[in-house]
Amino acid sequence: MGLELYLDLLSQPCRAIYIFTKKNGITFQQHTVELLKGQHLSDAFAQVNSLKKVPAMKDGDFILTESVAILLYLAHKYKVSDNWYPQDLQARARVDEYLAWQHTTLRRNCLRALWHKVMLPVFLREQVAPEILAATLAELDMTLQLLEDKFLQNKAFLAGNCISLADLVAITELMHGLGCHSSLSPLPETGGEWS
Amino acid sequence: MGLELYLDLLSQPCRAIYIFTKKNGITFQQHTVELLKGQHLSDAFAQVNSLKKVPAMKDGDFILTESVAILLYLAHKYKVSDNWYPQDLQARARVDEYLAWQHTTLRRNCLRALWHKVMLPVFLREQVAPEILAATLAELDMTLQLLEDKFLQNKAFLAGNCISLADLVAITELMHGLGCHSSLSPLPETGGEWS
Ligand SMILES: N[C@@H](CCC(=O)N[C@@H](CS)C(=O)NCC(=O)O)C(=O)O
Ligand SMILES: N[C@@H](CCC(=O)N[C@@H](CS)C(=O)NCC(=O)O)C(=O)O
Repeated sequence: MGLELYLDLLSQPCRAIYIFTKKNGITFQQHTVELLKGQHLSDAFAQVNSLKKVPAMKDGDFILTESVAILLYLAHKYKVSDNWYPQDLQARARVDEYLAWQHTTLRRNCLRALWHKVMLPVFLREQVAPEILAATLAELDMTLQLLEDKFLQNKAFLAGNCISLADLVAITELMHGLGCHSSLSPLPETGGEWS
Repeated sequence: MGLELYLDLLSQPCRAIYIFTKKNGITFQQHTVELLKGQHLSDAFAQVNSLKKVPAMKDGDFILTESVAILLYLAHKYKVSDNWYPQDLQARARVDEYLAWQHTTLRRNCLRALWHKVMLPVFLREQVAPEILAATLAELDMTLQLLEDKFLQNKAFLAGNCISLADLVAITELMHGLGCHSSLSPLPETGGEWS
Protein backbone atom coordinates (compact mmCIF):
# COMPACT_ATOMS: atom_id res chain seq x y z
CA MET A 1 0.00 0.00 0.00
CA GLY A 2 1.34 3.39 -0.95
CA LEU A 3 0.62 6.83 0.37
CA GLU A 4 -3.01 7.67 1.15
CA LEU A 5 -4.31 11.12 2.01
CA TYR A 6 -7.64 11.97 3.62
CA LEU A 7 -8.59 15.43 2.44
CA ASP A 8 -11.36 17.89 1.88
CA LEU A 9 -10.14 20.63 -0.41
CA LEU A 10 -12.43 23.11 1.32
CA SER A 11 -9.92 22.94 4.19
CA GLN A 12 -6.85 25.19 4.16
CA PRO A 13 -4.37 22.67 5.63
CA CYS A 14 -5.65 20.04 3.19
CA ARG A 15 -5.04 22.40 0.29
CA ALA A 16 -1.48 23.08 1.49
CA ILE A 17 -0.75 19.35 1.43
CA TYR A 18 -2.52 18.85 -1.89
CA ILE A 19 -0.57 21.64 -3.61
CA PHE A 20 2.67 20.36 -2.09
CA THR A 21 2.15 16.83 -3.45
CA LYS A 22 1.16 18.04 -6.92
CA LYS A 23 4.05 20.48 -7.14
CA ASN A 24 6.54 17.81 -6.08
CA GLY A 25 5.18 14.93 -8.14
CA ILE A 26 4.24 12.89 -5.07
CA THR A 27 1.59 10.37 -6.02
CA PHE A 28 -1.04 9.20 -3.57
CA GLN A 29 -4.47 7.70 -3.27
CA GLN A 30 -6.96 10.40 -2.33
CA HIS A 31 -9.85 9.77 0.05
CA THR A 32 -12.26 12.66 0.13
CA VAL A 33 -13.75 13.29 3.58
CA GLU A 34 -16.54 15.79 3.06
CA LEU A 35 -16.71 18.14 6.03
CA LEU A 36 -20.03 19.64 4.94
CA LYS A 37 -21.54 16.15 4.98
CA GLY A 38 -20.03 15.42 8.40
CA GLN A 39 -17.97 12.54 6.99
CA HIS A 40 -15.10 13.45 9.34
CA LEU A 41 -17.36 12.46 12.25
CA SER A 42 -18.02 8.95 10.90
CA ASP A 43 -16.81 5.84 12.71
CA ALA A 44 -14.88 4.82 9.63
CA PHE A 45 -12.85 8.03 9.61
CA ALA A 46 -12.35 7.93 13.40
CA GLN A 47 -10.38 4.72 12.78
CA VAL A 48 -7.95 6.80 10.73
CA ASN A 49 -7.95 9.97 12.82
CA SER A 50 -9.40 9.81 16.31
CA LEU A 51 -9.17 13.63 16.40
CA LYS A 52 -11.86 13.61 13.64
CA LYS A 53 -10.15 16.27 11.57
CA VAL A 54 -8.71 16.47 8.10
CA PRO A 55 -6.03 16.21 6.82
CA ALA A 56 -4.81 12.75 7.77
CA MET A 57 -2.19 10.56 6.10
CA LYS A 58 -1.64 6.83 5.87
CA ASP A 59 1.64 5.46 4.60
CA GLY A 60 1.34 1.69 4.80
CA ASP A 61 0.46 1.12 8.46
CA PHE A 62 1.74 4.48 9.59
CA ILE A 63 -0.98 7.00 10.28
CA LEU A 64 -0.13 10.66 10.77
CA THR A 65 -2.27 13.71 11.54
CA GLU A 66 -1.56 17.45 11.76
CA SER A 67 -0.85 19.17 8.46
CA VAL A 68 2.51 20.59 9.54
CA ALA A 69 3.76 17.15 10.59
CA ILE A 70 2.45 15.64 7.33
CA LEU A 71 4.18 18.31 5.22
CA LEU A 72 7.49 17.72 7.04
CA TYR A 73 7.10 13.95 6.66
CA LEU A 74 6.49 14.25 2.92
CA ALA A 75 9.35 16.75 2.49
CA HIS A 76 11.78 14.33 4.18
CA LYS A 77 10.50 11.12 2.67
CA TYR A 78 10.36 12.33 -0.92
CA LYS A 79 13.56 14.41 -0.65
CA VAL A 80 11.89 17.42 -2.27
CA SER A 81 14.03 20.34 -3.37
CA ASP A 82 15.80 22.10 -0.51
CA ASN A 83 13.87 25.38 -0.66
CA TRP A 84 10.71 23.82 0.82
CA TYR A 85 12.42 22.92 4.09
CA PRO A 86 16.08 23.92 3.95
CA GLN A 87 18.94 21.85 5.40
CA ASP A 88 20.74 25.02 6.46
CA LEU A 89 20.27 25.51 10.20
CA GLN A 90 19.20 29.15 10.16
CA ALA A 91 17.13 28.95 6.98
CA ARG A 92 15.23 25.97 8.38
CA ALA A 93 14.74 27.73 11.71
CA ARG A 94 12.98 30.58 9.87
CA VAL A 95 10.53 28.11 8.35
CA ASP A 96 9.99 26.41 11.73
CA GLU A 97 9.45 29.81 13.35
CA TYR A 98 6.66 30.66 10.94
CA LEU A 99 5.09 27.20 11.16
CA ALA A 100 4.98 27.50 14.97
CA TRP A 101 3.76 31.10 14.95
CA GLN A 102 0.83 30.65 12.58
CA HIS A 103 -1.20 28.13 14.61
CA THR A 104 -2.48 30.65 17.12
CA THR A 105 -2.39 33.71 14.85
CA LEU A 106 -3.01 33.63 11.10
CA ARG A 107 -4.67 30.22 11.14
CA ARG A 108 -6.85 31.08 14.12
CA ASN A 109 -7.83 34.51 12.83
CA CYS A 110 -8.61 33.54 9.24
CA LEU A 111 -10.76 30.71 10.55
CA ARG A 112 -12.65 32.97 12.96
CA ALA A 113 -13.17 35.61 10.27
CA LEU A 114 -14.59 33.00 7.93
CA TRP A 115 -16.99 31.73 10.59
CA HIS A 116 -18.11 35.15 11.79
CA LYS A 117 -18.41 36.72 8.36
CA VAL A 118 -19.58 33.83 6.18
CA MET A 119 -20.30 30.45 7.77
CA LEU A 120 -22.56 31.56 10.61
CA PRO A 121 -24.51 34.40 8.95
CA VAL A 122 -24.66 33.15 5.36
CA PHE A 123 -24.67 29.35 5.59
CA LEU A 124 -26.19 28.78 9.02
CA ARG A 125 -28.30 31.95 9.15
CA GLU A 126 -27.10 32.75 12.67
CA GLN A 127 -26.53 36.37 13.60
CA VAL A 128 -23.08 37.37 14.80
CA ALA A 129 -23.09 40.41 17.11
CA PRO A 130 -21.48 43.38 15.34
CA GLU A 131 -18.98 43.91 18.18
CA ILE A 132 -17.84 40.29 17.97
CA LEU A 133 -17.39 40.56 14.21
CA ALA A 134 -15.52 43.84 14.64
CA ALA A 135 -13.19 42.30 17.25
CA THR A 136 -12.54 39.30 14.99
CA LEU A 137 -11.63 41.51 12.04
CA ALA A 138 -9.50 43.80 14.20
CA GLU A 139 -7.54 40.79 15.47
CA LEU A 140 -7.10 39.58 11.90
CA ASP A 141 -5.80 43.02 10.91
CA MET A 142 -3.23 42.95 13.73
CA THR A 143 -2.11 39.50 12.66
CA LEU A 144 -1.77 40.57 9.02
CA GLN A 145 0.37 43.49 10.16
CA LEU A 146 2.65 41.15 12.13
CA LEU A 147 2.82 38.80 9.17
CA GLU A 148 4.09 41.67 7.07
CA ASP A 149 6.33 43.37 9.63
CA LYS A 150 7.97 40.32 11.11
CA PHE A 151 7.90 37.68 8.41
CA LEU A 152 7.30 39.04 4.91
CA GLN A 153 8.95 42.46 5.31
CA ASN A 154 9.73 43.58 1.78
CA LYS A 155 10.74 40.18 0.50
CA ALA A 156 8.90 37.97 -1.92
CA PHE A 157 8.73 35.00 0.47
CA LEU A 158 8.18 34.57 4.18
CA ALA A 159 11.40 32.75 5.03
CA GLY A 160 14.35 33.13 2.70
CA ASN A 161 14.65 33.82 -1.02
CA CYS A 162 12.50 31.04 -2.34
CA ILE A 163 9.13 29.47 -1.68
CA SER A 164 9.05 27.25 1.42
CA LEU A 165 6.50 25.33 3.46
CA ALA A 166 5.89 28.58 5.34
CA ASP A 167 4.54 30.31 2.21
CA LEU A 168 2.35 27.38 1.32
CA VAL A 169 0.78 27.22 4.77
CA ALA A 170 0.30 31.00 4.78
CA ILE A 171 -1.16 31.36 1.31
CA THR A 172 -3.80 28.71 1.81
CA GLU A 173 -4.96 30.53 4.97
CA LEU A 174 -4.89 33.93 3.27
CA MET A 175 -6.91 32.68 0.30
CA HIS A 176 -9.48 31.38 2.75
CA GLY A 177 -9.78 34.81 4.32
CA LEU A 178 -9.91 36.60 1.00
CA GLY A 179 -13.66 36.36 0.73
CA CYS A 180 -14.32 37.82 4.13
CA HIS A 181 -12.02 40.72 4.82
CA SER A 182 -11.25 43.79 2.78
CA SER A 183 -7.62 43.95 4.00
CA LEU A 184 -7.09 40.71 2.17
CA SER A 185 -8.80 41.72 -1.02
CA PRO A 186 -6.66 42.60 -4.01
CA LEU A 187 -9.63 44.56 -5.38
CA PRO A 188 -10.47 48.12 -4.39
CA GLU A 189 -13.19 48.26 -1.76
CA THR A 190 -16.60 48.22 -3.38
CA GLY A 191 -18.73 48.50 -0.27
CA GLY A 192 -20.39 45.32 -1.48
CA GLU A 193 -21.40 42.25 0.44
CA TRP A 194 -17.88 40.84 0.83
CA SER A 195 -15.99 44.02 1.61
CA MET B 1 29.11 36.30 20.95
CA GLY B 2 27.66 32.96 21.97
CA LEU B 3 24.12 31.83 22.56
CA GLU B 4 21.82 34.21 24.43
CA LEU B 5 18.36 33.34 25.71
CA TYR B 6 15.66 35.78 26.79
CA LEU B 7 13.53 33.97 29.34
CA ASP B 8 11.14 34.31 32.22
CA LEU B 9 10.95 31.02 34.06
CA LEU B 10 7.33 31.75 34.94
CA SER B 11 6.58 30.97 31.31
CA GLN B 12 6.01 27.37 30.22
CA PRO B 13 7.79 27.57 26.83
CA CYS B 14 10.73 29.30 28.55
CA ARG B 15 10.96 26.49 31.06
CA ALA B 16 10.95 23.88 28.28
CA ILE B 17 13.94 25.60 26.67
CA TYR B 18 15.71 26.09 30.01
CA ILE B 19 15.37 22.42 30.99
CA PHE B 20 16.48 21.35 27.52
CA THR B 21 19.68 23.42 27.68
CA LYS B 22 20.55 22.28 31.20
CA LYS B 23 19.88 18.63 30.42
CA ASN B 24 22.03 18.79 27.29
CA GLY B 25 24.89 20.85 28.68
CA ILE B 26 24.20 23.77 26.33
CA THR B 27 25.73 26.91 27.80
CA PHE B 28 24.21 30.33 27.20
CA GLN B 29 23.96 33.82 28.56
CA GLN B 30 20.59 34.29 30.22
CA HIS B 31 18.66 37.55 30.02
CA THR B 32 15.69 37.57 32.33
CA VAL B 33 12.66 39.38 30.90
CA GLU B 34 10.21 39.72 33.78
CA LEU B 35 6.67 39.40 32.47
CA LEU B 36 5.10 40.54 35.73
CA LYS B 37 7.10 43.76 35.49
CA GLY B 38 6.11 44.22 31.84
CA GLN B 39 9.72 44.02 30.70
CA HIS B 40 8.62 42.14 27.55
CA LEU B 41 6.85 45.33 26.47
CA SER B 42 9.98 47.51 26.70
CA ASP B 43 11.55 49.09 23.63
CA ALA B 44 14.81 47.30 24.43
CA PHE B 45 13.15 43.89 24.25
CA ALA B 46 11.13 44.82 21.14
CA GLN B 47 14.51 45.13 19.37
CA VAL B 48 15.04 41.44 20.09
CA ASN B 49 11.49 40.20 19.60
CA SER B 50 9.02 42.48 17.87
CA LEU B 51 6.29 40.03 18.91
CA LYS B 52 7.03 41.09 22.53
CA LYS B 53 6.91 37.58 23.89
CA VAL B 54 9.35 35.28 25.61
CA PRO B 55 11.20 33.07 24.87
CA ALA B 56 13.57 34.58 22.30
CA MET B 57 17.02 33.46 21.25
CA LYS B 58 20.07 35.26 19.89
CA ASP B 59 22.93 33.30 18.41
CA GLY B 60 25.45 35.86 17.22
CA ASP B 61 23.38 38.04 14.88
CA PHE B 62 20.69 35.45 14.37
CA ILE B 63 17.52 36.12 16.32
CA LEU B 64 14.85 33.44 16.64
CA THR B 65 11.46 33.41 18.35
CA GLU B 66 8.86 30.68 18.98
CA SER B 67 9.82 28.06 21.52
CA VAL B 68 9.27 25.11 19.19
CA ALA B 69 11.57 26.63 16.56
CA ILE B 70 14.18 27.44 19.23
CA LEU B 71 14.09 23.87 20.59
CA LEU B 72 14.54 22.42 17.09
CA TYR B 73 17.38 24.86 16.37
CA LEU B 74 19.21 23.90 19.56
CA ALA B 75 18.63 20.18 19.00
CA HIS B 76 20.17 20.43 15.52
CA LYS B 77 22.98 22.84 16.34
CA TYR B 78 24.21 21.01 19.45
CA LYS B 79 23.61 17.53 18.01
CA VAL B 80 21.83 16.38 21.17
CA SER B 81 21.08 12.70 21.64
CA ASP B 82 18.69 11.28 19.08
CA ASN B 83 15.74 10.65 21.39
CA TRP B 84 14.93 14.37 21.70
CA TYR B 85 14.20 14.73 17.99
CA PRO B 86 14.79 11.42 16.21
CA GLN B 87 16.39 11.08 12.79
CA ASP B 88 14.07 8.19 11.98
CA LEU B 89 11.31 9.44 9.66
CA GLN B 90 8.33 8.00 11.52
CA ALA B 91 9.68 8.61 15.02
CA ARG B 92 10.37 12.24 14.15
CA ALA B 93 6.93 12.62 12.60
CA ARG B 94 5.37 11.56 15.92
CA VAL B 95 7.24 14.35 17.70
CA ASP B 96 6.27 16.86 14.99
CA GLU B 97 2.66 15.73 15.25
CA TYR B 98 2.54 16.44 18.96
CA LEU B 99 4.38 19.76 18.61
CA ALA B 100 1.85 20.89 15.98
CA TRP B 101 -1.17 19.59 17.90
CA GLN B 102 -0.40 21.22 21.25
CA HIS B 103 -0.49 24.87 20.14
CA THR B 104 -4.26 25.09 19.90
CA THR B 105 -5.08 22.43 22.49
CA LEU B 106 -2.98 21.71 25.59
CA ARG B 107 -1.09 25.00 25.44
CA ARG B 108 -4.24 27.03 24.85
CA ASN B 109 -6.29 25.26 27.49
CA CYS B 110 -3.70 25.23 30.27
CA LEU B 111 -3.15 28.95 29.68
CA ARG B 112 -6.87 29.73 29.76
CA ALA B 113 -7.36 27.65 32.91
CA LEU B 114 -4.54 29.50 34.63
CA TRP B 115 -6.02 32.88 33.70
CA HIS B 116 -9.59 32.00 34.59
CA LYS B 117 -8.78 30.17 37.81
CA VAL B 118 -5.77 32.06 39.14
CA MET B 119 -4.51 35.15 37.32
CA LEU B 120 -7.79 37.03 36.95
CA PRO B 121 -9.51 36.20 40.25
CA VAL B 122 -6.49 35.91 42.56
CA PHE B 123 -3.89 38.29 41.16
CA LEU B 124 -6.03 40.85 39.37
CA ARG B 125 -9.14 40.50 41.57
CA GLU B 126 -11.40 40.28 38.53
CA GLN B 127 -14.40 37.97 38.70
CA VAL B 128 -14.68 35.24 36.07
CA ALA B 129 -18.26 34.16 35.39
CA PRO B 130 -18.84 30.62 36.71
CA GLU B 131 -20.09 29.42 33.31
CA ILE B 132 -16.93 30.70 31.60
CA LEU B 133 -14.72 28.98 34.16
CA ALA B 134 -16.73 25.78 33.80
CA ALA B 135 -16.39 25.87 29.99
CA THR B 136 -12.65 26.47 30.27
CA LEU B 137 -12.16 23.52 32.62
CA ALA B 138 -14.41 21.28 30.51
CA GLU B 139 -12.33 22.10 27.43
CA LEU B 140 -9.15 21.35 29.38
CA ASP B 141 -10.61 18.01 30.44
CA MET B 142 -11.40 17.09 26.83
CA THR B 143 -7.88 18.02 25.81
CA LEU B 144 -6.35 15.94 28.62
CA GLN B 145 -8.43 12.99 27.46
CA LEU B 146 -7.16 13.39 23.89
CA LEU B 147 -3.60 13.72 25.18
CA GLU B 148 -4.00 10.38 26.90
CA ASP B 149 -6.02 8.56 24.25
CA LYS B 150 -4.13 9.70 21.19
CA PHE B 151 -0.61 10.48 22.34
CA LEU B 152 0.28 8.94 25.71
CA GLN B 153 -1.88 5.80 25.52
CA ASN B 154 -0.33 3.39 28.00
CA LYS B 155 3.24 4.30 27.22
CA ALA B 156 5.69 6.20 29.39
CA PHE B 157 6.36 8.90 26.77
CA LEU B 158 4.26 10.77 24.24
CA ALA B 159 6.17 9.82 21.09
CA GLY B 160 8.29 6.71 21.17
CA ASN B 161 10.11 4.85 23.94
CA CYS B 162 12.19 7.66 25.29
CA ILE B 163 11.80 11.27 26.31
CA SER B 164 11.53 13.69 23.36
CA LEU B 165 10.83 17.37 22.78
CA ALA B 166 7.13 16.44 22.82
CA ASP B 167 7.30 15.36 26.48
CA LEU B 168 9.23 18.44 27.50
CA VAL B 169 6.74 20.79 25.86
CA ALA B 170 3.83 18.84 27.38
CA ILE B 171 5.15 18.56 30.91
CA THR B 172 5.88 22.26 31.26
CA GLU B 173 2.29 23.02 30.24
CA LEU B 174 0.86 20.35 32.54
CA MET B 175 2.86 21.61 35.52
CA HIS B 176 1.46 25.06 34.83
CA GLY B 177 -2.08 23.71 34.96
CA LEU B 178 -1.42 21.65 38.08
CA GLY B 179 -2.36 24.44 40.45
CA CYS B 180 -5.66 25.14 38.80
CA HIS B 181 -7.40 21.95 37.88
CA SER B 182 -8.15 18.86 39.91
CA SER B 183 -7.78 16.50 36.91
CA LEU B 184 -4.14 17.49 36.86
CA SER B 185 -3.55 17.11 40.56
CA PRO B 186 -1.64 14.06 41.77
CA LEU B 187 -3.22 14.58 45.20
CA PRO B 188 -6.67 13.35 46.18
CA GLU B 189 -9.28 16.10 45.95
CA THR B 190 -9.42 18.03 49.17
CA GLY B 191 -12.21 20.40 48.31
CA GLY B 192 -9.73 23.17 49.12
CA GLU B 193 -9.04 26.38 47.30
CA TRP B 194 -7.12 24.80 44.40
CA SER B 195 -9.25 21.71 43.84
N1 LIG C 1 -4.03 21.57 13.42
C1 LIG C 1 -4.74 20.75 12.46
C2 LIG C 1 -6.08 21.35 12.20
C3 LIG C 1 -6.99 20.45 11.41
C4 LIG C 1 -8.38 21.06 11.29
O1 LIG C 1 -8.77 21.91 12.11
N2 LIG C 1 -9.11 20.63 10.26
C5 LIG C 1 -10.44 21.14 10.06
C6 LIG C 1 -10.66 21.51 8.61
S1 LIG C 1 -9.67 22.92 8.19
C7 LIG C 1 -11.44 20.05 10.42
O2 LIG C 1 -11.26 18.89 10.08
N3 LIG C 1 -12.47 20.44 11.14
C8 LIG C 1 -13.51 19.57 11.51
C9 LIG C 1 -13.88 19.70 12.95
O3 LIG C 1 -13.13 20.34 13.71
O4 LIG C 1 -14.93 19.16 13.33
C10 LIG C 1 -3.94 20.63 11.17
O5 LIG C 1 -3.21 21.58 10.85
O6 LIG C 1 -4.03 19.59 10.50
N1 LIG D 1 4.04 30.50 20.58
C1 LIG D 1 4.97 31.22 21.44
C2 LIG D 1 4.24 31.74 22.62
C3 LIG D 1 5.05 32.71 23.45
C4 LIG D 1 4.22 33.29 24.57
O1 LIG D 1 2.97 33.33 24.50
N2 LIG D 1 4.89 33.76 25.62
C5 LIG D 1 4.20 34.34 26.73
C6 LIG D 1 4.73 33.79 28.04
S1 LIG D 1 4.29 32.09 28.23
C7 LIG D 1 4.43 35.84 26.70
O2 LIG D 1 5.54 36.31 26.49
N3 LIG D 1 3.35 36.60 26.93
C8 LIG D 1 3.41 38.01 27.01
C9 LIG D 1 2.33 38.66 26.21
O3 LIG D 1 1.67 37.96 25.41
O4 LIG D 1 2.13 39.85 26.40
C10 LIG D 1 6.10 30.28 21.86
O5 LIG D 1 5.86 29.06 21.97
O6 LIG D 1 7.23 30.75 22.07
